[in-house]
Amino acid sequence: MIGVTMDLNLTQTIDILSRTPVVLSALLNNAPPELLTSNEGLDTWSPFDIIGHLIHGETTDWIPRARMILNYGESRAFEPFNRFAQYENSKGKSTAQLLQEFEALRSQSLSALQDMNLTADQLSLRGMHPSLGSVTLRQLLSTWVAHDLSHIAQVLRVMSKQYSEAVGPWKEFLPILSR
Amino acid sequence: MIGVTMDLNLTQTIDILSRTPVVLSALLNNAPPELLTSNEGLDTWSPFDIIGHLIHGETTDWIPRARMILNYGESRAFEPFNRFAQYENSKGKSTAQLLQEFEALRSQSLSALQDMNLTADQLSLRGMHPSLGSVTLRQLLSTWVAHDLSHIAQVLRVMSKQYSEAVGPWKEFLPILSR
Repeated sequence: MIGVTMDLNLTQTIDILSRTPVVLSALLNNAPPELLTSNEGLDTWSPFDIIGHLIHGETTDWIPRARMILNYGESRAFEPFNRFAQYENSKGKSTAQLLQEFEALRSQSLSALQDMNLTADQLSLRGMHPSLGSVTLRQLLSTWVAHDLSHIAQVLRVMSKQYSEAVGPWKEFLPILSR
Repeated sequence: MIGVTMDLNLTQTIDILSRTPVVLSALLNNAPPELLTSNEGLDTWSPFDIIGHLIHGETTDWIPRARMILNYGESRAFEPFNRFAQYENSKGKSTAQLLQEFEALRSQSLSALQDMNLTADQLSLRGMHPSLGSVTLRQLLSTWVAHDLSHIAQVLRVMSKQYSEAVGPWKEFLPILSR
């Protein structure tokens, strides 16, 4: 139940964030294994790696940082985000397991966000990013959405690249294959 | 039921193609209207326009071109694809209607593809693209997949750009917002 104190933007934010596990499952659950683990080359991520990255964000980034802003404002910087943690955390798990884990964690995150009953004034509160400096809670939540959309798009790009050769001369009409 | 004459690649192709309407519905059904109709600027497409484009592909591009290859080989060029047809076809429809229409047409396309019971030899047959020249049926079907993935990624990019300003200083960490 979304609190009446939330402004319209926050309702939309929660709507989009709640779709991400559903979209990723529709795209990846029981997909051919070679599509799940292929990447774009050295030091790039496969769909499997990307789900692990999103999982790590749920446990260390979005809600923890929102709490940092509410509790400490700009007086304490956020913990830097570890972009490689998923290699350890995802070890030995299947894609189906990761998708379930992400879905459960996202659901918890959105419950926590709703329980905050944020007001417009609170959304304007500021925290301290370790490299970007002063940021607002509203910017953090907007970034959460854009980050989700960006990583789903990345999954699609990585998948599409497995067809780079197979499309033959059509490659020139598909800029996603050259990004 | 997938025919036993299909090779593995074709099974995977059908698997991915069958997911596209589910993924788009998970992402867009009952989404905030301003997300569905916002685009990236003059002469660019909104998610609403992109669904219309995919619908037009079902009726004029993929299966019709596969039939052209099977029936005429390279002796007759495909009809050029109209990239603007959706503006007329989608007029007065809701996003929910377009999503349903796409789902129904995609389901028909995949039935038609399965009914072709294509052999590996047939997948190597050639047709004539009006600007790219000689192409194989396997390349056409691979392009269908990459084209789907590319347009879902485009939907995500267009949606993410509605947050370009809202993310504040995080913009520099989100290259999707500058594409």
